[in-house]
Amino acid sequence: MKGFVFHGPGQSSWDTVPDPGIKDATDVIVRVDAVTICGTDLHILKGDVPEVRPGTILGHEAVGEVVEAGSDVRTVRPGDRVLVSCITACGRCAYCRKAMYGQCRDGGGWILGHLIDGTQAEYVRVPHADLSVHPLPSTLDAKDAVLLADIFPTGYEVGVLNGQVRPGDTVAVVGAGPVGLAAIATARLFSPERVVAVDLAPARLDAAKRFGADAVVDARETPEQLIADLTDGMGADVVIEAVGVPETFELCTRMVRPGGHVANVGVHGKPATLHLEDLWIKNITITTGLVDTHSTPTLLRMAAAGRLPTSQLVTHTFPLDRMEEAYDVFAKAADTGALKVVLGGTRHEEVAVRAAEEKDVRSYA
Amino acid sequence: MKGFVFHGPGQSSWDTVPDPGIKDATDVIVRVDAVTICGTDLHILKGDVPEVRPGTILGHEAVGEVVEAGSDVRTVRPGDRVLVSCITACGRCAYCRKAMYGQCRDGGGWILGHLIDGTQAEYVRVPHADLSVHPLPSTLDAKDAVLLADIFPTGYEVGVLNGQVRPGDTVAVVGAGPVGLAAIATARLFSPERVVAVDLAPARLDAAKRFGADAVVDARETPEQLIADLTDGMGADVVIEAVGVPETFELCTRMVRPGGHVANVGVHGKPATLHLEDLWIKNITITTGLVDTHSTPTLLRMAAAGRLPTSQLVTHTFPLDRMEEAYDVFAKAADTGALKVVLGGTRHEEVAVRAAEEKDVRSYA
Amino acid sequence: MKGFVFHGPGQSSWDTVPDPGIKDATDVIVRVDAVTICGTDLHILKGDVPEVRPGTILGHEAVGEVVEAGSDVRTVRPGDRVLVSCITACGRCAYCRKAMYGQCRDGGGWILGHLIDGTQAEYVRVPHADLSVHPLPSTLDAKDAVLLADIFPTGYEVGVLNGQVRPGDTVAVVGAGPVGLAAIATARLFSPERVVAVDLAPARLDAAKRFGADAVVDARETPEQLIADLTDGMGADVVIEAVGVPETFELCTRMVRPGGHVANVGVHGKPATLHLEDLWIKNITITTGLVDTHSTPTLLRMAAAGRLPTSQLVTHTFPLDRMEEAYDVFAKAADTGALKVVLGGTRHEEVAVRAAEEKDVRSYA
Amino acid sequence: MKGFVFHGPGQSSWDTVPDPGIKDATDVIVRVDAVTICGTDLHILKGDVPEVRPGTILGHEAVGEVVEAGSDVRTVRPGDRVLVSCITACGRCAYCRKAMYGQCRDGGGWILGHLIDGTQAEYVRVPHADLSVHPLPSTLDAKDAVLLADIFPTGYEVGVLNGQVRPGDTVAVVGAGPVGLAAIATARLFSPERVVAVDLAPARLDAAKRFGADAVVDARETPEQLIADLTDGMGADVVIEAVGVPETFELCTRMVRPGGHVANVGVHGKPATLHLEDLWIKNITITTGLVDTHSTPTLLRMAAAGRLPTSQLVTHTFPLDRMEEAYDVFAKAADTGALKVVLGGTRHEEVAVRAAEEKDVRSYA
Repeated sequence: MKGFVFHGPGQSSWDTVPDPGIKDATDVIVRVDAVTICGTDLHILKGDVPEVRPGTILGHEAVGEVVEAGSDVRTVRPGDRVLVSCITACGRCAYCRKAMYGQCRDGGGWILGHLIDGTQAEYVRVPHADLSVHPLPSTLDAKDAVLLADIFPTGYEVGVLNGQVRPGDTVAVVGAGPVGLAAIATARLFSPERVVAVDLAPARLDAAKRFGADAVVDARETPEQLIADLTDGMGADVVIEAVGVPETFELCTRMVRPGGHVANVGVHGKPATLHLEDLWIKNITITTGLVDTHSTPTLLRMAAAGRLPTSQLVTHTFPLDRMEEAYDVFAKAADTGALKVVLGGTRHEEVAVRAAEEKDVRSYA
Repeated sequence: MKGFVFHGPGQSSWDTVPDPGIKDATDVIVRVDAVTICGTDLHILKGDVPEVRPGTILGHEAVGEVVEAGSDVRTVRPGDRVLVSCITACGRCAYCRKAMYGQCRDGGGWILGHLIDGTQAEYVRVPHADLSVHPLPSTLDAKDAVLLADIFPTGYEVGVLNGQVRPGDTVAVVGAGPVGLAAIATARLFSPERVVAVDLAPARLDAAKRFGADAVVDARETPEQLIADLTDGMGADVVIEAVGVPETFELCTRMVRPGGHVANVGVHGKPATLHLEDLWIKNITITTGLVDTHSTPTLLRMAAAGRLPTSQLVTHTFPLDRMEEAYDVFAKAADTGALKVVLGGTRHEEVAVRAAEEKDVRSYA
Repeated sequence: MKGFVFHGPGQSSWDTVPDPGIKDATDVIVRVDAVTICGTDLHILKGDVPEVRPGTILGHEAVGEVVEAGSDVRTVRPGDRVLVSCITACGRCAYCRKAMYGQCRDGGGWILGHLIDGTQAEYVRVPHADLSVHPLPSTLDAKDAVLLADIFPTGYEVGVLNGQVRPGDTVAVVGAGPVGLAAIATARLFSPERVVAVDLAPARLDAAKRFGADAVVDARETPEQLIADLTDGMGADVVIEAVGVPETFELCTRMVRPGGHVANVGVHGKPATLHLEDLWIKNITITTGLVDTHSTPTLLRMAAAGRLPTSQLVTHTFPLDRMEEAYDVFAKAADTGALKVVLGGTRHEEVAVRAAEEKDVRSYA
Repeated sequence: MKGFVFHGPGQSSWDTVPDPGIKDATDVIVRVDAVTICGTDLHILKGDVPEVRPGTILGHEAVGEVVEAGSDVRTVRPGDRVLVSCITACGRCAYCRKAMYGQCRDGGGWILGHLIDGTQAEYVRVPHADLSVHPLPSTLDAKDAVLLADIFPTGYEVGVLNGQVRPGDTVAVVGAGPVGLAAIATARLFSPERVVAVDLAPARLDAAKRFGADAVVDARETPEQLIADLTDGMGADVVIEAVGVPETFELCTRMVRPGGHVANVGVHGKPATLHLEDLWIKNITITTGLVDTHSTPTLLRMAAAGRLPTSQLVTHTFPLDRMEEAYDVFAKAADTGALKVVLGGTRHEEVAVRAAEEKDVRSYA
């Protein structure tokens, strides 16, 4: 088959590789119908994630069809259309028993396209399939569904649920990239009074408005002042960090009200300064987290019911074999305006056509 | 009357000052029977808390008798023996309605001995009395009760409740000063599997054992390793910071398990480094907070029922008029072994004698 | 002034009565601008609430202007436009400190139009004003706001919050009268997957659809079967009882899934049968409750932001002095189609005209 | 092998039956070392649980050694000493993912000695072994550990956790049989101010005192009055029903304070009357539930640390082959004073001797 292989920092290609096979009785093999590229994949390509060994197929998000299942797989079988979650879960360790699948101690967590071959290929082996793939509602388009493999559960669980958004809240989301937009969209599920988006790029702030932000503000224009003005000087109830650099994290801690929550979603490479000399007295709560994807079944039902604006996040679609081009478009998001780039698999043609007819999607296919 | 007056950095004395009077219909005047000195008072004396104006009587913890009550006070009356809480609460603002009294927006919060005259005097005016003083169970000794004005609710609310200690947990408490000891004692209320205390001073680690720590460790001997050894490499479920310097906070974030809680109790004067490059993926929760004293009525009942080891915290007692000497003993805790120093008021003599007879209390009286 | 006085079972009239005056330093006098009639008022008229003494002015919901304030009132002053909450709160007792104002132990709880004179009059005295009246956002119409005195907080707190509605849930609401409709509208704030309304009256089921019910079902057509069909045989996550008779409560316990919640909002006059022989094993949670109105400030902000469909609930408006006619229309809801009947006060004329112009409101004025 | 076989109402015997074998890759076979008899087993013998087919081996609690494991079992292997939980969990269904194992939809829940052969035998097959058996700490005696198969998690989860016991609470436990005693013991983990036990039998009330009840009261002597006297007229914060008849459930609803919790643990065969005419206004929460045993790993650690008074519950021990005699003693608890009766297996002799030496255990062995 074909797969997108990491060959070391700066080197990758769409190669012919051996087909995956069942290794363990709890594995499934999924034929990939749609896959997307994550910002993390770009970090891997740069060499920022050293535990990814050269030779690994990248990708941790996919929609496809089960073509083979190990003898102990109970919840899906060949022929089932499934979502491949970015998180693999053994279901047996102490963390999985608490639905903290991201912290799985027995060979799960984030492993696809990281410690084992991933989803950016024609086929993918998924271990611990019962808790790691999800049957798809038939009404849900692959292109929409693939966004529920990582980006939507991440925004929802690590941003909105950890941040404990409540009806009537003022919510600030710092960073209006894909995960920030997913946080904005899912924050709305709890009917906050207002959502304020902060970013540097006008295009992303525009996207934030489409996803439901009530106000947007350039990060250089003291967003903490806007929040103060909107909240009678108090600060935001919930602040979601969706960038991953020290400056934005520190901004978040200046925007939160006493008793409020800062939910960190961003992937950080450097330490931040925590101004405890100001914060010790403010009763704030800061949370961090890798997604657990415990919310994926719920989000799938809501997406199938049309209650999540998934498709708005997809700006570009490609056939699967134009992976390198898709990476290029996604890596140059500032120029291309890319939010999420979806690659179709064997059923790509009809999906792309239908999608193009249905809505305003720029397609490079 | 007499009171202990701050005259600017490094200057303070036990002075003759005017008696306080009712200013507002919600005030009470309390005749002070027992008072204690807080580490914060030492900071004020050094000039670290610039909003305390020279001329202010210090102290924010007391037990005494109501001698006068404003016309709108409903819950206590003259003759009632009360605890004066370190936190004053208007009961009407948005924060007070959520029992976040420490964040009171209408003239409450920590004001005694800070923004207005405090409790280290023969009499003290307490605003918003209905929510700021607590009737005392008759069986509770003043010397025990005064520890419920600040130190015990702080350890319990900001450490144990914010940290969400649960039965079976491994709890680490960094800092075995008075508030750390109160955190250890109140963590036990939730039946953790073990409490590990960390400090530099052998005397404090000994005290930690008396307060219920199952293991103690010198902060210089990589406590994170002991915690890892005790928890199969996972880390502590809850870590309570009760020192207030960057190094101890950072130690706490190295000791916590994925999914665990770091509850900051320490008063910090400098920023700390938050290693988000390690922590972003670990699903941890960090909380900060000034005490709200919402738990005070519960703690009073528990103390009256003998379920809190309050008296073990009192190492020295003095009559009220030897305030300067008491400050000296408390400030030199490393030499004197002082944990909490209690000054008795008009009923001092009999209390001190009784206490001395009952247990091993070094009295300078 | 004029007020609507209960003279014993079956007897009531719009009488000339003495103006109320300040009795306590925490009272305010409010000039009533809008008031509504509650189903409970009809029960009082029938004699079902014996603690209401003849001579009492009825009514526990109002919007108006503060015309006089006691010396200890801090949060409002004469000239302020306020909502008079159905619940009065001392703010000092153990229950008020937990924001359980409905259970106030010091002269609060539901007292207006019950134990003391109520709001169906030109003026009303409100005790404990600081926690019992709420300043109104200027953009909020009195007719909309008055629905936040009781009906909306009741549906939200006792139905939706007690029932713990979550995104993606299936919610069943039994009873589509005013409080059931408020529960439907506020359940939507948490983005359930679907809300199913159950009632006997086609008109009420139509109203339920307008308030956001996704499906409606006649109570005689085995609603438990519809719920089972919609949920793969599991049952509803949350069932809200908004009628108050044994049959509907028992229906609720047949509709809930294992692990689900039954939130009782209905006012019951008789015991129900609890089928513990079926339910003991099902991990269900049943809650009851009088409203606390702790959510009123939040709901006011949301209504001002246009996020609550308050006005749809008002089917009829009258000037204040046509109270008897308004009671008649409300009591004959089956014939008149009345949901909520609002009586305007001194500013009635312009409000009624504006409302009539703005939307489809049948006005008997 | 030998096993205790139900042959229809009133008929049972210790029979020679075929050895169990692995049927599914997730099964284990456990050689039983200790087993106990549950009140539910007596109900089955009477014919009250019609889904138990004649020919079924009874028993759902055991400690033993894994002698064979299916190919997909990961967490235990032959030679491991394990606790067999009363609840079997597939780990994959929607309920298991929420740790609600008692409601497992895929062949789990309570099945041992109910829908499949149980533990009162020399060997038992346990399906879904990874989540249904628990490795035992080596320091934990089999006789103590076997009480963690059902009785302790039931009292803790369904009574104490569902009831949300908090430090300082007044807790009433109605029914001081084994599960009520386990509730009393585990309520203490949260440091309530007092636990009050209610029963009819003086011997059980004595046992309640040994398990930590601060007060005991005969159920015929209006326990609601004692509770009112102890709580200033308010009622208990938490009431745990551990009997299972309508009268005791109704008593519980009279003992709870406004805002309090009634946690039903009892197995009911008949409906109860729920006095909603009194309770609708009281903000109470009622919970029901079958145990999930999600707390078993925590309780095992606590028992191993000596923090649970498990052994006090065992009044009688027998060798495994005297099962019929053990049933007789347990069924006549009123005469024999039996609380829990433990039958040892192949290692019985030494255990019984050791236990007899260590403490005051009446042994019929």
